Amino acid sequence: MLNYDKQADWSNGFGEHQSPISIRTDSVKCLKAPLDYHVLNDYRLHQEIDDGTTVRLTGEGTADIFGRQFNFVQVHFHAPSEHVINGKHSPLEIHLVHQNAIGQLVVVALLVSLGEKQNPQLQQIIDHFNQAKTTTIDLNIRDWAPWYPVGAHYLGSLTTPPLTEGVEWLVISNPEFTVTKAQVDWFQTHFGEDNRATQPVNGRTVELYK
Amino acid sequence: MLNYDKQADWSNGFGEHQSPISIRTDSVKCLKAPLDYHVLNDYRLHQEIDDGTTVRLTGEGTADIFGRQFNFVQVHFHAPSEHVINGKHSPLEIHLVHQNAIGQLVVVALLVSLGEKQNPQLQQIIDHFNQAKTTTIDLNIRDWAPWYPVGAHYLGSLTTPPLTEGVEWLVISNPEFTVTKAQVDWFQTHFGEDNRATQPVNGRTVELYK
Repeated sequence: MLNYDKQADWSNGFGEHQSPISIRTDSVKCLKAPLDYHVLNDYRLHQEIDDGTTVRLTGEGTADIFGRQFNFVQVHFHAPSEHVINGKHSPLEIHLVHQNAIGQLVVVALLVSLGEKQNPQLQQIIDHFNQAKTTTIDLNIRDWAPWYPVGAHYLGSLTTPPLTEGVEWLVISNPEFTVTKAQVDWFQTHFGEDNRATQPVNGRTVELYK
Repeated sequence: MLNYDKQADWSNGFGEHQSPISIRTDSVKCLKAPLDYHVLNDYRLHQEIDDGTTVRLTGEGTADIFGRQFNFVQVHFHAPSEHVINGKHSPLEIHLVHQNAIGQLVVVALLVSLGEKQNPQLQQIIDHFNQAKTTTIDLNIRDWAPWYPVGAHYLGSLTTPPLTEGVEWLVISNPEFTVTKAQVDWFQTHFGEDNRATQPVNGRTVELYK
C-alpha cells in the first residue's frame, strides 16, 4: 500500500521502456500496411551543430504520423545503427525527431544501407561540417522519407541522456537511398562508434508494418 | 561529450515531466474548441479491485483521442483531486485510463463537483465494494464522458509508482454529473487522502480547450 505521507520516498523506477531495441521480425506482431507516416511540408534544415557526439541539424517541417500532426525539429546520426533487425546493424541510422504541441516526441529512424551511390544531402552535411561550431545551412531532406515506409513501431526512449521514456519510434528498414562507405567512415572518424547498446524489450508490443 | 564506453553510468535523469500539476487557466495556451475525445464503444466495467489505495475497476471500451484509437482499460479514483485548477481541488478525480496498440497511455481525468444528486454508477461501485477482494461487476460508464469536454491537455506521468512519464493527460473540468459528500466521504474513510502532491510544470506546454 502506498504511503501518501511519504511521497518523496516513492521511487520513480524508470528504465523499463528504453531504446534502442533488437527486433526479430519473425517474433513480432505483423501488419500488412505501410507505417502511417506522411511528410506534409518539406523538411528544411537551417543550422548544423557539432554536439561532440554526432552532427545535429535543426530545421522545420511537418508530418502526419499515425493520424496526428507533428513538427519536424531536428535530425542527427548514429554509426553504426542503434536499432538492430534480425541481429544485424545497419552502417548508419538517421534520426528524424518530431514533436507535437504538447511536447510528445516521435523519432523516425532510417536504417540506411551501403551502396555505390552516395547520398547528396548527407555529403553536403559532411562538406559543410565545421568542428566545434554551429553554422547555418539550407538543405531540403524531404526525399529521405520513403513513399511506402515499412518497419517497426514501438514505444521507447531517447537513446542519449536524459533517456526520457514515452518516445514513439518508427524504425524504417527500407530507405530509398544509400550511403557510401566513405560517408559512414567520416562519421566514425569524427565521433567514434556512437550507438547506444540495445535495451531489453520487457514485454513491450512491437508492431511490424510491411 | 558522452562516453559511449561507459553507458552504464548514464543517469536517466527522469522526473521533469511528472503529474499531477497545478493549472492556472489565465497563464496557459487557450484553444477555442472542445478536447478531441470521443467514446466509440461503451466503457463496460467487469472487475472491481481493492488495491489498498483506491478502488480500481478494469473493463473495456474504445475511444478516439486526438485522432487516434485507444482502448479504455481501467478506471480508479482519487479524493480529493490530484490536479488543481486555479488553486482549487475538486472533491473527487476519476481517472479513465486508456492504452493503444504499442502501449501508449492516455488518462482522461474527470474533476467532479459535489451536488445534491449522487452518481448512480459510483454508488453501485461503492455498494459493490468488498474489502481486500476482487469481484466481478457489470457496469456501463459511457455517460461519464461529457459530450463537449473542456479542460487541459498536457504530457505528464502516472501519479503512483512507477511514475512512468510519457503519459498524455486530458483533465476535464466540466463533467455533467455530480457526486454527494457521502460518496466522497466513503472514499476518504476507506483510503484516506490519496492525492499525489502537484509537481513542477518545468516549462511544459499546457493547452486549455474551452
